[in-house]
Amino acid sequence: MTRKLTFIVFALALGLVATAQKEFTLEDLNFGGNNYRNMIPQNRTIVWWGDTPVRLSADSAWTIDPNNGAEKLLFTRKSLSNHGKLSALTSARFPYADKPIVQLNDDDNDLVLIDFKKRLRTLQMNNDFDVCEWHPASHNMAYVKDNDLYVAHSDPRSSSKFDFLVELERLTTDGSRDIVYGQAVHRNEFGIEGGLFWNPRGTRLAFYRMDQSMVADYPLVNIPELDDSTRVEATAAPEKYPMAGRTSHLVTVGVYDCATKRTVYLDAGDPTDRYFTNIAWSPDGNTIYMQELNRDQNDCRLVSYDATTGKRLKELYRETHPKYVEPQHPIVFLPWDDTKFLLRSERDGYDHLYLFDVQGNMLKQVTSGNWVVMDLLGFDAKSHTAIIASNEANPIGRNLYSVNIDNGQRHRIDEGGRGWHDGSLNASGTMLVDKYQEPDVPRNIAFADTRTGKTTRYFTAPDPWQGYTVPTYECGTLTAADGTTPLYYRMVKPADFDPSKKYPTVVYVYGGPHAHNVDAGWHYRSRSWETYMAQRGYILFILDNRGSENRGRDFEQATFRQLGQIEMADQMQGVNYLKSLPYVDTTRLGVHGWSFGGFMTISLMTNYPDVFKVGVAGGPVIDWKWYEVMYGERYMDTPQTNPEGYALTSLIPKAKDLKGRLQIIIGLNDPTVVPQHAYSFLKACIAAGTQPDFYVYPGQGHNMRGHQSVHLHERITRYFDDYLK
Amino acid sequence: MTRKLTFIVFALALGLVATAQKEFTLEDLNFGGNNYRNMIPQNRTIVWWGDTPVRLSADSAWTIDPNNGAEKLLFTRKSLSNHGKLSALTSARFPYADKPIVQLNDDDNDLVLIDFKKRLRTLQMNNDFDVCEWHPASHNMAYVKDNDLYVAHSDPRSSSKFDFLVELERLTTDGSRDIVYGQAVHRNEFGIEGGLFWNPRGTRLAFYRMDQSMVADYPLVNIPELDDSTRVEATAAPEKYPMAGRTSHLVTVGVYDCATKRTVYLDAGDPTDRYFTNIAWSPDGNTIYMQELNRDQNDCRLVSYDATTGKRLKELYRETHPKYVEPQHPIVFLPWDDTKFLLRSERDGYDHLYLFDVQGNMLKQVTSGNWVVMDLLGFDAKSHTAIIASNEANPIGRNLYSVNIDNGQRHRIDEGGRGWHDGSLNASGTMLVDKYQEPDVPRNIAFADTRTGKTTRYFTAPDPWQGYTVPTYECGTLTAADGTTPLYYRMVKPADFDPSKKYPTVVYVYGGPHAHNVDAGWHYRSRSWETYMAQRGYILFILDNRGSENRGRDFEQATFRQLGQIEMADQMQGVNYLKSLPYVDTTRLGVHGWSFGGFMTISLMTNYPDVFKVGVAGGPVIDWKWYEVMYGERYMDTPQTNPEGYALTSLIPKAKDLKGRLQIIIGLNDPTVVPQHAYSFLKACIAAGTQPDFYVYPGQGHNMRGHQSVHLHERITRYFDDYLK
Repeated sequence: MTRKLTFIVFALALGLVATAQKEFTLEDLNFGGNNYRNMIPQNRTIVWWGDTPVRLSADSAWTIDPNNGAEKLLFTRKSLSNHGKLSALTSARFPYADKPIVQLNDDDNDLVLIDFKKRLRTLQMNNDFDVCEWHPASHNMAYVKDNDLYVAHSDPRSSSKFDFLVELERLTTDGSRDIVYGQAVHRNEFGIEGGLFWNPRGTRLAFYRMDQSMVADYPLVNIPELDDSTRVEATAAPEKYPMAGRTSHLVTVGVYDCATKRTVYLDAGDPTDRYFTNIAWSPDGNTIYMQELNRDQNDCRLVSYDATTGKRLKELYRETHPKYVEPQHPIVFLPWDDTKFLLRSERDGYDHLYLFDVQGNMLKQVTSGNWVVMDLLGFDAKSHTAIIASNEANPIGRNLYSVNIDNGQRHRIDEGGRGWHDGSLNASGTMLVDKYQEPDVPRNIAFADTRTGKTTRYFTAPDPWQGYTVPTYECGTLTAADGTTPLYYRMVKPADFDPSKKYPTVVYVYGGPHAHNVDAGWHYRSRSWETYMAQRGYILFILDNRGSENRGRDFEQATFRQLGQIEMADQMQGVNYLKSLPYVDTTRLGVHGWSFGGFMTISLMTNYPDVFKVGVAGGPVIDWKWYEVMYGERYMDTPQTNPEGYALTSLIPKAKDLKGRLQIIIGLNDPTVVPQHAYSFLKACIAAGTQPDFYVYPGQGHNMRGHQSVHLHERITRYFDDYLK
Repeated sequence: MTRKLTFIVFALALGLVATAQKEFTLEDLNFGGNNYRNMIPQNRTIVWWGDTPVRLSADSAWTIDPNNGAEKLLFTRKSLSNHGKLSALTSARFPYADKPIVQLNDDDNDLVLIDFKKRLRTLQMNNDFDVCEWHPASHNMAYVKDNDLYVAHSDPRSSSKFDFLVELERLTTDGSRDIVYGQAVHRNEFGIEGGLFWNPRGTRLAFYRMDQSMVADYPLVNIPELDDSTRVEATAAPEKYPMAGRTSHLVTVGVYDCATKRTVYLDAGDPTDRYFTNIAWSPDGNTIYMQELNRDQNDCRLVSYDATTGKRLKELYRETHPKYVEPQHPIVFLPWDDTKFLLRSERDGYDHLYLFDVQGNMLKQVTSGNWVVMDLLGFDAKSHTAIIASNEANPIGRNLYSVNIDNGQRHRIDEGGRGWHDGSLNASGTMLVDKYQEPDVPRNIAFADTRTGKTTRYFTAPDPWQGYTVPTYECGTLTAADGTTPLYYRMVKPADFDPSKKYPTVVYVYGGPHAHNVDAGWHYRSRSWETYMAQRGYILFILDNRGSENRGRDFEQATFRQLGQIEMADQMQGVNYLKSLPYVDTTRLGVHGWSFGGFMTISLMTNYPDVFKVGVAGGPVIDWKWYEVMYGERYMDTPQTNPEGYALTSLIPKAKDLKGRLQIIIGLNDPTVVPQHAYSFLKACIAAGTQPDFYVYPGQGHNMRGHQSVHLHERITRYFDDYLK
């Protein structure tokens, strides 16, 4: 624990010069703002063509010499333009390490492969589908349209002709709102991002089938766009939404074989109240691995299936926990040994790598310690090393390491060793693009040799806020309500901060699992609205309570069956700290958060009505019984099995305790935290005679997109200006 | 005009005594408040048993001697209670002038007839239906259940048995959401209140059939009640809602003959884009009269039909107008001459009575003048007089008159001749119950002899606000924006009004047709929220602009095809008057209104952004294209035929001009001004970067019911307190 506590308060004081400085606007500081692009640290788009780094702009591609950063033009968009209008090159990919082929989209969003040496189109796949997944080895494309599944095979050749489609096979005919093929299931929980899984050679396709006919519809409503002359009336937009404790959907997994044109379904048994996730293929493409979780989410099994017959082969691993087990990552086979794979698990309390063989024997724990593996970027096969990201060096940092699978030795391979590093690995695993921020570094990009750790700076982003009056950003720790656990906070102070004055102070909060607010990125990852508020004379305070991510299983699971309670206790530790500061005006404390943070905001406003004077809660959960099965039951079990927990955490009975000014803001079309939450809270307040304020963004979902976010943050700011300032 | 202008400013100064007075709360002053019943003028429920007045309380019925007000117990609820639990006697009726029979409901809402002399039940009709209409002459009952139509015949006798039902006939089988029988059609416009019409002897039933299968659904949403343990998820609650210019429903009229058990439909031709209204029976029950209006609402015909065959007999009368004709009242036959009837029409510019014969000859105009007939209460057959209500004596008053049909002579027959009089006529038409208010009279009740005009005071309600600090209520006229028309206003001033001070002032507005705000009732009909606001230090100002009711056709039709424009011009005349008053703080002007008044509020806020600082708009129309066909097209024609009018009046393009603080409040389940209006305005404001505030009452319709109205008015008040005070 000492290591963490040594991470003491460190203040950044940027731009504190006496010359006239510019003031920020929300057009500068909000991601939807008209000037936002100029206000964020510059970036470079770099992708790998095999082991060659290629820098992409909208119109050009350059190879980079990683030893000195020297760039050489590879091709321009214009030079390829005899193949029709192409989209910006920033989305280009190089699917073959050894061929001068670039993968792009044209203006119709068709997939196009172009030989940029010969300047000839080699493949075009019509992309008039809802979802698609192309495989570069087989040139097969899996499609979903209107919830039915198709596979197309194309014949690549160097040609200027446009139509290469050889065969289009329709695999299903009963696709509908009720029966959904080839898309993410289980509402994207358990690491699920899609529903199409090619085997390594692209000859077999595993896919999800979801029967949600038995799931209740949530009645969302579409308000026509004001410039839509073809529509007059609002229309129903029902959304299948299984609420905690209610009937959920049924998922099965099919496998289509392009050679035999036959589909089999995995023989996984009755899918009722089960989650099938983390589908992975064996390197030979004959076996499928899947993690199977019970609805209570406390019993997970890794099971293998014969891809030809669908027959269940073996349970390789089982993990249980009294609270919950959360499988989020498919197994990954070692590139140098088809009989072994890495599994990620929190079984020892922290997310670590474990080596298994295909018989299901756990050969060893590869990483261990009171820190978490945050990503597995890939392998350097020759040296038997995996490349990972972890917070071993700093609980709020992210560094890149090579890990020798044979002996477990780790070496940090990023530049500087501080801050927050994102890596992208070349094909051989020998070189990384290391993009990183540090609290006082907007963005640096370096190339890192994964074997030697040698790094070469390629790009240094200038401070985009040069010339502006910038607040100060501080980071520190304080002790959680359990009396021992260190928690990280960030504080943002006005540029002209005067400790003899008293400042209105706003706590920004999220507090939920799978997220954090404070890290070692630029300005400790301060959200730019904090800067805007500090400019208006507020202090901002942000604390990652227990329940948030990257601090290990028990830290996150402390909130089990009583979401919000431990989190509030920890946030009140933050408030106690604020109360100890002479410059915080504790008669003018505000709180703001979105989603889980909206739930936290209202929880804090109603549980501590004499502490918080003003709050703004966005997209708040009000009662977990109206939240979805997967996420909700993981943390809260069901309303039937945990009635006391649901009662304790519900904000409905708290409506009567509202005292300060609270504005609730939702998207009318929010399919995540459905409007029923906010409406029910309003009903409860109306019945109790309390007076929250409310706003809704028609047509918007769980978050406000584009320029509407500027409007939203103007709104949030005004509310604090009206009642807290 | 002179008469109207002589109605000059008259101030009431009530309760201005120096002793300590009580302060009002919203629980006192809002109709949903817990103490509201004690704060409104006391009333007496009086119904007629033939020519005998009967006073009803919940538990007792007394006959009244109209000469001296002496009461005599007739029966008590308890004395009838061997016939099961009966509902409060205040809903009792005496269906037979010559029999000691009282009509009541029991606890199951069954219809019960009891002989209160013999204390025997004579009839019971099961009332487990959605709509029902019982006829006392035939004892037939028409029922609607699940949109299908039934007729039951009961056999009355003096008995204590409970089941008298002889026969239940099901008339239709295709009733559904799409096909609706026996209910109000055309969305209750054109005076339509129901869909079942017995002939005078109760042997034939005319009924509406509405096919609304082609009408678009508006997607309303039901949020479960918080104490409903059986429901979890919000549910869709689609509402058939035909918007202006869009496809509307088809209405036909059927006639069922209880003797032949046959149904015929009136041969009225293609019902597409037509309104069938004001169904009336000939005294012999063989002929049906109906007014038939085209969709453009400028061409109305009175047509007769043979009730036996459904055949069209004759067009008796046709009225057209370049703007619109609005039939609202069925014809009424003279009780002493089955060949003649009275028709109400605005054809000469004011609502008056016309005498017709059944051949369709207009025999004469019975009433005339620059005033309107407000009601036809009935007849004194012997003296050939009709009893009417009109504002002949005072444009903002309502008096009761006898009108001799033969010679047209009118005599005022109410008590006092001032104020606002509601009358209830006895069976013979010789005696009235005259209930009235005057600006300084909370409520008086008198009996009036319709032949002599002699009145006898029966009840004088005490001032319910005795002991409270009461503001002052003033009424006056000013000139409309046309430079000539007098408009009536009301002004409410704080009790401690000091003309040397400057007061924040709120304009309350409705402004639409078929309504008025200022009349000669108690406190000039001041809404009690005005009193509440005056107590908090505001001045309230309420003006009935052109377009409002009771001032004649041209006054109301001035707004045709451009709703809101003339109305705003007149309201600004009011503002100019306010600006002329030294005690009105014109930098602190607010505006509030609901429904049409919500439309007016936002219109004023956005057209005069520098005049109004704060507004609260409830259930506002934003663009008439989203309002219903019947009301909307009457005043605005269709979006196709009046695009410039729709464009001029739409508030969508005005969203950008919002400058002051505006709160919009709606009921989430508003089926009248659907939420699309408010949501679309929010969308427009978000796009334009303006910031209205918003609130919604889940589960509430176009107005807030019960105690929720207290919450609403606390909310409205707080908004003005926050930003205007």
